[in-house]
Amino acid sequence: MPTLDLALPPHAHDQQSLNTVRAGRLLDSLLQTRATSVSLVEGLSDADCTVQSMPDASPAKWHLAHTTWFFEEFILSPHLPGYRVFDPAFRYLFNSYYDTIGPRHPRPQRGLLTRPTLEQISAFRDHVDAALLKLPLDAAPASLLELGLHHEQQHQELLLTDLLHLFAQNPLHPAYRPLPGPLPAERTPVALRWIRFPGGLTEIGHDGEGFAFDNEGPRHRVWLGDFALAHRPVCNADWLDFMADDGYATPTLWLADGWRWVQEHGVRAPAYWQAHDDGFYTETMTLHGLQPLLPQAPVCHVSFYEADAYARWAGARLPTEFEWEAAAGRQAPTAPAQLADHPWRLPLAMGAAPEGDLHDLWGGVWEWTASAYLPYPGFRPAPGAVGEYNGKFMSGQMVLRGGSCATPPGHLRPTYRNFFYPHQRWQFTGLRLAR
Amino acid sequence: MPTLDLALPPHAHDQQSLNTVRAGRLLDSLLQTRATSVSLVEGLSDADCTVQSMPDASPAKWHLAHTTWFFEEFILSPHLPGYRVFDPAFRYLFNSYYDTIGPRHPRPQRGLLTRPTLEQISAFRDHVDAALLKLPLDAAPASLLELGLHHEQQHQELLLTDLLHLFAQNPLHPAYRPLPGPLPAERTPVALRWIRFPGGLTEIGHDGEGFAFDNEGPRHRVWLGDFALAHRPVCNADWLDFMADDGYATPTLWLADGWRWVQEHGVRAPAYWQAHDDGFYTETMTLHGLQPLLPQAPVCHVSFYEADAYARWAGARLPTEFEWEAAAGRQAPTAPAQLADHPWRLPLAMGAAPEGDLHDLWGGVWEWTASAYLPYPGFRPAPGAVGEYNGKFMSGQMVLRGGSCATPPGHLRPTYRNFFYPHQRWQFTGLRLAR
Amino acid sequence: MPTLDLALPPHAHDQQSLNTVRAGRLLDSLLQTRATSVSLVEGLSDADCTVQSMPDASPAKWHLAHTTWFFEEFILSPHLPGYRVFDPAFRYLFNSYYDTIGPRHPRPQRGLLTRPTLEQISAFRDHVDAALLKLPLDAAPASLLELGLHHEQQHQELLLTDLLHLFAQNPLHPAYRPLPGPLPAERTPVALRWIRFPGGLTEIGHDGEGFAFDNEGPRHRVWLGDFALAHRPVCNADWLDFMADDGYATPTLWLADGWRWVQEHGVRAPAYWQAHDDGFYTETMTLHGLQPLLPQAPVCHVSFYEADAYARWAGARLPTEFEWEAAAGRQAPTAPAQLADHPWRLPLAMGAAPEGDLHDLWGGVWEWTASAYLPYPGFRPAPGAVGEYNGKFMSGQMVLRGGSCATPPGHLRPTYRNFFYPHQRWQFTGLRLAR
Amino acid sequence: MPTLDLALPPHAHDQQSLNTVRAGRLLDSLLQTRATSVSLVEGLSDADCTVQSMPDASPAKWHLAHTTWFFEEFILSPHLPGYRVFDPAFRYLFNSYYDTIGPRHPRPQRGLLTRPTLEQISAFRDHVDAALLKLPLDAAPASLLELGLHHEQQHQELLLTDLLHLFAQNPLHPAYRPLPGPLPAERTPVALRWIRFPGGLTEIGHDGEGFAFDNEGPRHRVWLGDFALAHRPVCNADWLDFMADDGYATPTLWLADGWRWVQEHGVRAPAYWQAHDDGFYTETMTLHGLQPLLPQAPVCHVSFYEADAYARWAGARLPTEFEWEAAAGRQAPTAPAQLADHPWRLPLAMGAAPEGDLHDLWGGVWEWTASAYLPYPGFRPAPGAVGEYNGKFMSGQMVLRGGSCATPPGHLRPTYRNFFYPHQRWQFTGLRLAR
Repeated sequence: MPTLDLALPPHAHDQQSLNTVRAGRLLDSLLQTRATSVSLVEGLSDADCTVQSMPDASPAKWHLAHTTWFFEEFILSPHLPGYRVFDPAFRYLFNSYYDTIGPRHPRPQRGLLTRPTLEQISAFRDHVDAALLKLPLDAAPASLLELGLHHEQQHQELLLTDLLHLFAQNPLHPAYRPLPGPLPAERTPVALRWIRFPGGLTEIGHDGEGFAFDNEGPRHRVWLGDFALAHRPVCNADWLDFMADDGYATPTLWLADGWRWVQEHGVRAPAYWQAHDDGFYTETMTLHGLQPLLPQAPVCHVSFYEADAYARWAGARLPTEFEWEAAAGRQAPTAPAQLADHPWRLPLAMGAAPEGDLHDLWGGVWEWTASAYLPYPGFRPAPGAVGEYNGKFMSGQMVLRGGSCATPPGHLRPTYRNFFYPHQRWQFTGLRLAR
Repeated sequence: MPTLDLALPPHAHDQQSLNTVRAGRLLDSLLQTRATSVSLVEGLSDADCTVQSMPDASPAKWHLAHTTWFFEEFILSPHLPGYRVFDPAFRYLFNSYYDTIGPRHPRPQRGLLTRPTLEQISAFRDHVDAALLKLPLDAAPASLLELGLHHEQQHQELLLTDLLHLFAQNPLHPAYRPLPGPLPAERTPVALRWIRFPGGLTEIGHDGEGFAFDNEGPRHRVWLGDFALAHRPVCNADWLDFMADDGYATPTLWLADGWRWVQEHGVRAPAYWQAHDDGFYTETMTLHGLQPLLPQAPVCHVSFYEADAYARWAGARLPTEFEWEAAAGRQAPTAPAQLADHPWRLPLAMGAAPEGDLHDLWGGVWEWTASAYLPYPGFRPAPGAVGEYNGKFMSGQMVLRGGSCATPPGHLRPTYRNFFYPHQRWQFTGLRLAR
Repeated sequence: MPTLDLALPPHAHDQQSLNTVRAGRLLDSLLQTRATSVSLVEGLSDADCTVQSMPDASPAKWHLAHTTWFFEEFILSPHLPGYRVFDPAFRYLFNSYYDTIGPRHPRPQRGLLTRPTLEQISAFRDHVDAALLKLPLDAAPASLLELGLHHEQQHQELLLTDLLHLFAQNPLHPAYRPLPGPLPAERTPVALRWIRFPGGLTEIGHDGEGFAFDNEGPRHRVWLGDFALAHRPVCNADWLDFMADDGYATPTLWLADGWRWVQEHGVRAPAYWQAHDDGFYTETMTLHGLQPLLPQAPVCHVSFYEADAYARWAGARLPTEFEWEAAAGRQAPTAPAQLADHPWRLPLAMGAAPEGDLHDLWGGVWEWTASAYLPYPGFRPAPGAVGEYNGKFMSGQMVLRGGSCATPPGHLRPTYRNFFYPHQRWQFTGLRLAR
Repeated sequence: MPTLDLALPPHAHDQQSLNTVRAGRLLDSLLQTRATSVSLVEGLSDADCTVQSMPDASPAKWHLAHTTWFFEEFILSPHLPGYRVFDPAFRYLFNSYYDTIGPRHPRPQRGLLTRPTLEQISAFRDHVDAALLKLPLDAAPASLLELGLHHEQQHQELLLTDLLHLFAQNPLHPAYRPLPGPLPAERTPVALRWIRFPGGLTEIGHDGEGFAFDNEGPRHRVWLGDFALAHRPVCNADWLDFMADDGYATPTLWLADGWRWVQEHGVRAPAYWQAHDDGFYTETMTLHGLQPLLPQAPVCHVSFYEADAYARWAGARLPTEFEWEAAAGRQAPTAPAQLADHPWRLPLAMGAAPEGDLHDLWGGVWEWTASAYLPYPGFRPAPGAVGEYNGKFMSGQMVLRGGSCATPPGHLRPTYRNFFYPHQRWQFTGLRLAR
């Protein structure tokens, strides 16, 4: 698994060689990360990698090409003398949303690109990887390489969630991967406990050590009142109680926008839940195909609207992103051991962390917060196209914190701000109560 | 103009009579306010008051009936013994969005109700006003009466903005009212100056004196950095510069959602602006019909997306609602003198306030802020249907502060939180820069 | 009721005076017809006449103005020297669909025109009527006047059907007019009999006597096989049988387009039928408000899709428009006696015609045929804007024959071709079986 | 190329062995046809065969599976004792529109089925083909086998047109097949001549010899006036004249529905035409990739609306389907020689037929007629699911006659009725003028 541990060996005496060593390690990590991307599509057909199941999702092939385009556009073309562009048409085809760079293939039509083939995309990746190795180490734009690495990791998660969405539309319920081991036994979930945190003036945002996206800063002070967080996420058993209590049919539990969404789409349960013949929900579609709903597993694939309604029903609320960060900052992001081996596994093994602390903050489900995705005070996007990375999405979306079972471990940190529209739920999204 | 000055006379000795006196004054104010509502439709035809020009807007007749329904539903039926409901069908027809009360006429079909006629609505209003006078003063639910009064004032503003929207769709450009006087002369706007405010831990929200909506509290502390506000709102001359600089055609100035909105709707200028034959914008539709665009007048009828893009173009930003409140709290809301006489006038006479201070905070245009409309820490909606008043809209909308030329003066206060979706612009909405 | 009986008095000796006399009678008829239009809105409010309840329908005020515009545009402006246009803006506002004339107010926004008021439209009508009287009789463009008269009659019917649609959206179920007399008693419908007609080479289309629209010609020969028509239209009792037999839930009865329409709109019964609390349909919205469903009355407000499905269910089919015309041509269009007095009445009194013949061909419900609305062989639209009258609609619509309770009697003739899209059903539309 | 020449050898003496021989030949033809289907996807990727480029189109894989399902559902399951269904899920997945059979995978989601893979579909085809060989010849349901064969041929054409639509969405303009030879030289098209045909009572419809679909009968008499047809289809040079004369911008040339379609979709040229940088159209997307627009080639990929507008512009009209059949019936459907070898070639080589006759009736482009797709007098669908084959589409569509470059030659016959909605143009659709 790629990491960004750039701690230096003792013999690194001068700044120049130090930078060279750092850059070398970064490149190693990067190429390892890129190899991981390719491993994610092993066993998938060309068609599996080509089809787009909804405008919000992208084909796997597109993820593989777009992350590669990122290096060609931002690093190789400007920084590697004599670099030959693989195919000029790709500049148009695989630009995601960078208006600075020019027009681009419309997002909802990404799934119509049966050509280039998966094989051609692989050749594109090889071409770019080979060129990356030729980057002069002392002149390598390290911050861009690092951004590219993290960008690639983000798309690894999206590739998995988009694929799950595609397979979930298929009446055959195909499994992306077999279960990595026996399914945990069903058990009654641990009763929810409240962990208290004192308020006060709190530093929020990235402090400058290690990589972070621009939207995680500037670090700034926020005043927090005293608050408490649930020691574990809301689990499937909890959610079934909400459903049994007519949660989806009680308008006063819902935000007005949420209630409209429920009615327009006939929402009755989290995404991917399958009703048994008798009307009860007993299974859910996962990357391992249809699997039983374990009572103790964190509820997953709920929208912000659902999370908010549940919290209201439970007499609680969602935490703000500041409360979440303040609480999570006090414990290191310990990803479950098996994460490295099975980044695509179910959020099944949660709830096993030791007592007396916040459980399952990392690597189970993203946790919706009550915070709108807005710039921190003093936020300024970087100049040029890279400045479009995060800032222009600061409207209409809600922040999620933590990380999911599909999040690469290198992405788990207390200051990370994920964001989606309040109705979206094809990511591995759940919630933790606050009060 | 109704006010809520409930200061007591010196001879009010005991609590009981004191309450009675307070309630009496409140009722006086209320009935004055209700008379104002009726005066707003003077000179309008039955058709003018019936048609709904878009789902976001409501017919004037509906505003008159719905505000009346509010008193019948929340005050008279539960609190006035022997009260006879005017027409049971109105409970269904004129409920706006209270799910607790039951099913209701669909909002987009409000404009199909040619019956009841305006005359019948007037009779409904008389019936309810007469009943309000019979409320036993010592048992009057004062807080609900006060809420009803402010609710009615809110709808007075909406009635005017909805009517303007209707008339703006009419190729004949009808005037709601003649200009109350000669139009101010065109003049070069005052150069923009920055007023600095020190940051620190700041109390935000209503402090309990006088009326406030539930969403203005609880009062709580917020940490603010140092900031500066422009001494005046952005004006038409400024906006024409933005347009001349291709502001509407430069995607990097826009939030991603905003850019999509611009493209889908072909937005090229603020709402209601009319292009001259040579393509330049020289006039705008107002409640006085088509009027010239005065360079010095605050720009009006812009969406949050436009306000945000303008601020980015200007190298500035929008203030947060907390910065706005902190700054505005230091000066009393002095509505322009003519407001009381002409609540429907253009936002034309702005820019005349004394130097050295923040100009035109009140009574010109609502000012978009950078803050999403979210609950304050500790916010809890009231129990029952009244709890649906504000809380359930805390999703997807942005906060506006100040007040417009159509806002009843009693509504102008530093803690008032207005809110609309980021694309909406049929209200009198403008902006003030911050940095 | 206006007629076009232009039979001449014996003393009309020369062609010139004969033409003058004819033109004078035509003008008399025309002004009588125009007076009838005005009488149709008696008792309606300005709002009733202004609101547009769906894009397919138009406001009553618009009908009154558009028919007037027709005379101004096609007759007065070109043919009356010195004619002064009432208001130049009306040329844009009240053009329906004549591209030759220029741009026009978008159809779906007709209901936003609260101005001009009903009073101003009345003044427009008076202005045009007065000018029509000044037309020099010997130079009057008789064919255009006649077209204008029939155009006005068509809009009289549309005005009534559009108004019914508006009132049907209102939960108060307003009545346009009180019932003109006691409702007929419920009775078992007469058993259906088949009337046989021999086939052969048949002349179809208008033969040149009296007025006809261009789409009724040229007269041409069509080969017909032997056929039979039901002696009466399908009635409500028949339709309830179809519903009880799950007609609306049996896909094999429906055309593919029809089945999609049923599913998308949740169609379960004819338009305007109201279900009783126990789920049975017992009442229907009419121009007299809610009225009981009489078993013997012709079923009304069904779409072509429904008519076609019913016919299939009944083991029969719809007649072609040629069969219908061939059969109907053999009996004079005898409008029910009460038509002249109550053009807006229910199709209630049907089924009373003498035995041994086709019943209720005229003045009950329009009868859907199996024929697409296409040009007759040799059809050529008139040159100029009037050529847009009928021809450009010859796509996607189906022909109806006969006439409804809202059709002016002067419009009843065997060659008349009415046409609507197969899903439309706000006209008084029913069906008669063939085989 | 499969044919249906079932002429019998002289030694076929008795009916039983005659039937067996016939059935054997039919099976041979069928399996040859099914092999042709497979050959059509040679060289295509799994992704090419999986993606659905619009709801009207289907993936190639789906065509291969659905035609196979047809035999399993209608022939093998009911008629081959002991037949084992390949995969029960396919009954749901590959039913196209047969409501009688049960629920089915929604059409717009056909492109989400990345599983089953192309390989699994091939196995399905082999399984069914093997079973077809086991059908007892004397009991083989010959008419169903024949229907299945023709059904498969129809889908061969659709497979090609759907694939072209997919590739036309791809900015890379992939070629399905290389040009089979050098492109013909550009040349001025032959001047249009009119061929006259006398009218009279004419027999229309299939006469019972050879295969025909149910919608080609019953044979019946139609009265035709004298008419003339253009000796060749409208060609690209003609169409460029229409465009140069502002044909797409002249509303009076268009049916009202057509004009709305032009405006809503910004139609400016036939589908797949590509504008050169200077705005002129010089190339068109074909199954051989982008190719120059040959002036003499029949115009292709025009909708009925466009065909109708062109005819009006040209002072002519479209023929009725009866005129077309009457004229075409007098000459044998001689498919161009190269058809058998290159069913996917461009409609390029047209216009080479001998003088003095109707040119290019067969195998170039389908020709829109002025006739709505309606049942012939006496038409009755077959009982059971097969009855859904054609009849339920007899609403809203227009008839095309002839056959295109993608039509299997066995499908070319004067009575064949093809049908599409008037706005559709992804088939190889053109027109021939009449008057």
